[in-house]
This record gives sequence, structure tokens and C-alpha cells, in this order.
Amino acid sequence: MQINHNYNNLEQSYLFSTIAKKVNEYKQNNPDKNIIRLGIGDVTLPLAPAVISAMHKAVDDMADASTFKGYGEEQGYLFLRQAIANYYAKKGVELTTDEVFISDGAKSDVGNILDLFDKDNIVLIPDPVYPVYVDTNIMDGRQINYIKGTQENNFLPMPDDSIKADIIYLCSPNNPTGSVYTKAQLKTWVDYALKNDAVILFDSAYEIFVTDTTLPTSIYQIEGAKKCAIEFCSLSKTAGFTGTRCGYTIVPTDLVKDGNELRKMWLRRQSTKFNGVSYIVQRGAEAVFSDEGMAQIKEQIAYYLNNAKTIADGLRANNIWFVGGENSPYIWLKCPNNMSSWEYFDFLLNNANVVGTPGAGFGDAGEGYFRLSAFGDAENVKEAVKRIIRG
Amino acid sequence: MQINHNYNNLEQSYLFSTIAKKVNEYKQNNPDKNIIRLGIGDVTLPLAPAVISAMHKAVDDMADASTFKGYGEEQGYLFLRQAIANYYAKKGVELTTDEVFISDGAKSDVGNILDLFDKDNIVLIPDPVYPVYVDTNIMDGRQINYIKGTQENNFLPMPDDSIKADIIYLCSPNNPTGSVYTKAQLKTWVDYALKNDAVILFDSAYEIFVTDTTLPTSIYQIEGAKKCAIEFCSLSKTAGFTGTRCGYTIVPTDLVKDGNELRKMWLRRQSTKFNGVSYIVQRGAEAVFSDEGMAQIKEQIAYYLNNAKTIADGLRANNIWFVGGENSPYIWLKCPNNMSSWEYFDFLLNNANVVGTPGAGFGDAGEGYFRLSAFGDAENVKEAVKRIIRG
Repeated sequence: MQINHNYNNLEQSYLFSTIAKKVNEYKQNNPDKNIIRLGIGDVTLPLAPAVISAMHKAVDDMADASTFKGYGEEQGYLFLRQAIANYYAKKGVELTTDEVFISDGAKSDVGNILDLFDKDNIVLIPDPVYPVYVDTNIMDGRQINYIKGTQENNFLPMPDDSIKADIIYLCSPNNPTGSVYTKAQLKTWVDYALKNDAVILFDSAYEIFVTDTTLPTSIYQIEGAKKCAIEFCSLSKTAGFTGTRCGYTIVPTDLVKDGNELRKMWLRRQSTKFNGVSYIVQRGAEAVFSDEGMAQIKEQIAYYLNNAKTIADGLRANNIWFVGGENSPYIWLKCPNNMSSWEYFDFLLNNANVVGTPGAGFGDAGEGYFRLSAFGDAENVKEAVKRIIRG
Repeated sequence: MQINHNYNNLEQSYLFSTIAKKVNEYKQNNPDKNIIRLGIGDVTLPLAPAVISAMHKAVDDMADASTFKGYGEEQGYLFLRQAIANYYAKKGVELTTDEVFISDGAKSDVGNILDLFDKDNIVLIPDPVYPVYVDTNIMDGRQINYIKGTQENNFLPMPDDSIKADIIYLCSPNNPTGSVYTKAQLKTWVDYALKNDAVILFDSAYEIFVTDTTLPTSIYQIEGAKKCAIEFCSLSKTAGFTGTRCGYTIVPTDLVKDGNELRKMWLRRQSTKFNGVSYIVQRGAEAVFSDEGMAQIKEQIAYYLNNAKTIADGLRANNIWFVGGENSPYIWLKCPNNMSSWEYFDFLLNNANVVGTPGAGFGDAGEGYFRLSAFGDAENVKEAVKRIIRG
């Protein structure tokens, strides 16, 4: 018996446990202080009424033999795949329902999709980065090349023709930086992928936050993308589903690599190692895409975007460099006075009683930067910004 | 870009699609015939009232910011892991809550657990078999040895000391055969695994159907098993959760292989590639293990077991050889008159208008056998048995 020794190459992430430890210590020593958390990447608003109503009805369906649902369709119920195809049609992207796969969340699919690819492929990952892209490839033993986000490229790294890549990760609007690729930039990436016979794994988990209509919300808005890209999205941030769990993955029929239709491979993978998402949750997800649900969701997104604007306005007025803060719930700022990420974390905790996330936790290129998130209460966000500026 | 070429070694399973095609053709040619389906492995009774009530309450929790749940605990909510640990305590198995992992179903975990093991391990799989064990290892490119279930061993194959194995699959009560290992037989398997430094992947998805208190319902009732076995279970058949989706996996702290604690590896795998099960579903699952829920569930299980008895009694009275039919929802019979599995399928469809599952669909050793399931309506089952006997 040999274990998968690649697991021994994983680094333990102490990011959020270290944050929790520091915050707890501070609270013990300063029990009277009111700490505001802008570090968390989780939503805080409850589910929309249309979603709640649909899930109550679905629970009732399960209570009666005549409406009870056992095993569902392998790719997810057609009612939900159709709703998602319709959502894409409004973005100008035509999908067939068999190109849409329902899952319990983008994190699962982003990890599991690697089952389809050989271990010898070379991976290209932007830094700073959502750590799951890195860890899942280390688990498989793949070689990883990094491209650096910097102040100069506005944390939107572009392809380098001298670097070979087979699997490319892109996330736009980006976690952790909040920066958003333009259509022209994504076109450069698509062209690079096609030239290199590479697959782009495109994470669009924050697409709903894009209000600038010139910016892309799906990679399939870019010509040629259906021949090189898989898109992952989730209702976690779209509709507050972080605890309800539903996502979807698009694998276009045109995506053929190494002589194999990846859509068929993914269908085989999912129908072998997955048994679908709860009927109740799929009915809730369907309601997100209804007119009523979408109107309610958009109000919530506007609330979070207003928080982001509050933070962005405060930073801008004080000449603190940042990206994000619009078309995204994240703000990525340069730590003032050349502080390191953790120095600034300590500084904010001690002087402003505000908790954020040190950029260094998202990769080497994050050192010296800091993430704030807009998922908090609006009054708390206003107060936090005052304190951050006061320093 | 190279795909995972192991996928090209997968055989397409035409079992259930061929069944559907044959049934549809028969119905078109014989529209007046009343076909009874005893082939399906899906439940038909609705969710228990205690589960429905708990899920309605959980949906309401999601509607209010003060009770809303975002990202949950990585291994699953403690309330559910504790309920499962308590359920095991009643079986005489002591577990800590950090040995219990909640998932969306046993199928996912049985597939994903292979991430932890090197490709060079040798796999031992009983034939006939739940096809997922085979396909997931073909996807990884592992060598598979089969041990045959036969009429002589009552479809309970035992280890062969001349065969080396690193990863061993056992399913008891068995799908598709319905046969159940005794404690003495499982002890032989545990001893063999310990001697070979192997891991047993024990699928206990049908444990709730065991009414004979001398039979094991968990491999951890066998001495030494915590040092060599991972147990997978699901609420799919226990509580009719095939469409609601919740399962659990036990990885004991004592399970150390190749110098690594598998529990920690699985925690790392799941926290990297999975984001937990819907809060609403976890509350429903918790209700299954309440006194009220368990009493309701046991009534449903008794209903299905009574169907199994109806089938078993009918076969026994007509000297048709079978295993299962008690302590299991499945009956595995020898096709009369030395018919092949598919010959008997056609015979039953045409002469009795009853649909079952050809044993050949579960592996070479299933040829000449046939699976009937007890998940149907009681009156239909009685009628089907009459027709099967009449032939």
C-alpha cells in the first residue's frame, strides 16, 4: 500500500487560522473593543424570498409519494440547466442544455475537472490566486508555472509567449484582487490557449458583480473560447448559496482536446463519481434565475457593491493604491508605508480594530498587499473605512 | 495537452439504457399490458415527516440574517457528525466526531477516496459488483484483480492468500446480490487486510436493512478494522435520500498507512475539493437519527423488507435458487432452466410483464443470475411474484 505521496508536498495553509488566533488574542486583551471584520469571503444577507419559497415547495414535493423525487438526472434537472442556458442567452452566449452540468459548487468542479487531464500537463496559474487551483494540482503532482500580478499590470497578468502551458487558470472578476479582465485581454488569452492547444479553466464565480456592460461576464463572449475553455460558476456569491450549495460548469461540445470531447469525459466522470445535487437545492437555484428571483438577487448585489464603493471611495480619497472595488466585492490595496501584508494586518487590528486578509496568504505576489471584502453590514463598512483612514 | 487516456479504457455501460429500450419497445407493441418494475434500485416512499419538518425549519433559518448559514464546517456540521457517532455507539462502535465526514452521498466518496492512493496499488474487487468500484479504478489506471461470487460461496467471496491486494472493496449487505457477510467472515477479511497492509473500502449503504442481530452492520464491529478500513454509508436507502443527497464516511484516526494518517489526508482532500453539504439537507439528515425520525424510517424499511420477503417466499416455494431477500432489499436469483441473464430478462418481460436487472450487467460472475429489488409498491410486488412463478 502506497499513499499518494504528492499530498506530502502540500503546504499547510495557516492563513485563516492565524487570523483567527490573532483576533482572539486581541479580543482577550481588549474585551471592550468593537472589531469589524472585512476579511471574510462569505455572504451575510439571507436567501432571497423567491428561493425560500421554491425550496419550501420542493420540500413538500418530497413529502408525498406522487411528487417525491429519487435519483435525478445525472447532469442536473433539465429545468435548472434550461434556466442557466437562458441566463447565458441574455449574455449573448448560446448553450445547449447538455453543455451545462449542475454541481454542489464551483470548488468541487474546479478540483474534480483535473481527473480529465494527464499528470504531465503543464499548469499556468496567476499569482495571487485562490489557493484551490494550486493545491489540487500539487495533489496530482503537476508542474506549475506562475505568472505574476503586479501594480504595473493592475493585477491582470497577460500570457507570455515564451511560456508553454497546457492548463490555464483565469478568474475574472478576480478573487482575491477584484480586478476584471477586459474583452480584449481575454481575447489575448483565448488566442494564446488556442495557439498552445491549452485548456482555460475560467472561474466566473463573481460575474454577477459586473455592472460595466463593456466587461465580459463569461469567457464564451470571446470568439474562439468554446474551443478552449471550461467555465465554472456558482450561486455562492450570486445568490448567497455558500451554505445552500449549488454551482454549474459549462463544457462546450466544441471543446475537443487530444482527440477527445471533454464534455463526454466530464459526463462520464460526473455520472461515475457524483450523484447530483439535492432536488430541493436545484429548485431553489431555479428560482434564482426567475424574473422575481433575479430582481431580488440584484438588490443584494447592489447592497454589496455599495459597500465596495464605500471602501473604494475612502481609499481613493486617501491616495491608497488599490484595484477592485467596482464590478467586484473585493478591494485589493497596497499596504501603506511599505508595510508587509502581516504588518498591515497587525496595524489595522491594533489601531483600527478592523480585520482584513493579508495578501501574502494568496501567494508570493500578494506580499505587500491586502484584501478587504464588501460582504459585511453597510454601517459597519462605513465605520471600518473611517477607522482605516484614521489609521 | 494530453487527456487522461485511462478514460479510453472505460467500457460504456449499456445495462440500464438497454433495459429501457427493451421495455419501451415492448410497451409500444403491447400498449394494454401492465408492466411491473422490480429492476430499479431507487426508493419510492416519500421522506419521513420528521425529515420534512426539519428541512422546512432549516429553509426558514436561511430566510433570516440572524439564523442564515453561510459556509459550514468543512467536515459537516457537528450536530450531524455527533448524531452519526451516537448511531454508531448504539452498534457498539465508538467514534470521535472528527472521524466522521459528511458528504453528498457514498458514490462521491467511494470515487474520490482514490485520490489518497498511489496508482500502483493493486485493487481487489468482488464480482458481481457495483460498477462504480471498477470504473473509478480504471479511470486512475490501477490494476484490478477480481474474486468471484458463486453459488458455492453464496456470493460471499473470501480472501485468497495467494493474491496480493492493497485496496479491497467489500459491500455488505451486498449490491447487487443482497448477501450479507457474517462477523466471522468479515474477521477473515480484516485479518487478511492487516496481514497485507491493505485498506478495506467498506460500503455499508444497506446496513439499515439488517434485522438479524448476529450480523454485522459496520466493519468496525470487527476487531482490528479501525486499523485497516474506511466505511462509506449513505442515507439514500436508509431514509429515502436518493434525491435529497447525504452520505457519510468514517476514517478512523488509527488508520495509518505508509506512514500517513488517512483521516488527515481525507480532511485535506475534502477541504480542498469540496465545500460541504447543504445546511438544509444536513438538518434533514440529523432528523433521520432522532428517535422520532428513526421510528418513521424503520417503518419504511419494514415495508421494503416485507416486499423482499414476498419475493423470497415465492421463489423458495418454487425451488428457485437465490440469496438475499432478508436483511437486504435485493434478491439475487439463478435464472431458471439455465437461461442467460438477458434471456431471462426477455422471458420475464414478455411472459410476466415484469422488469428486473440482468446479473451479467454487474460483471462476468453475474451471468446466469438476475436481480430483483424490493423498493416497489407492496401490491405490485405481490402481483409480480405471482406472474414470475407462473412464468
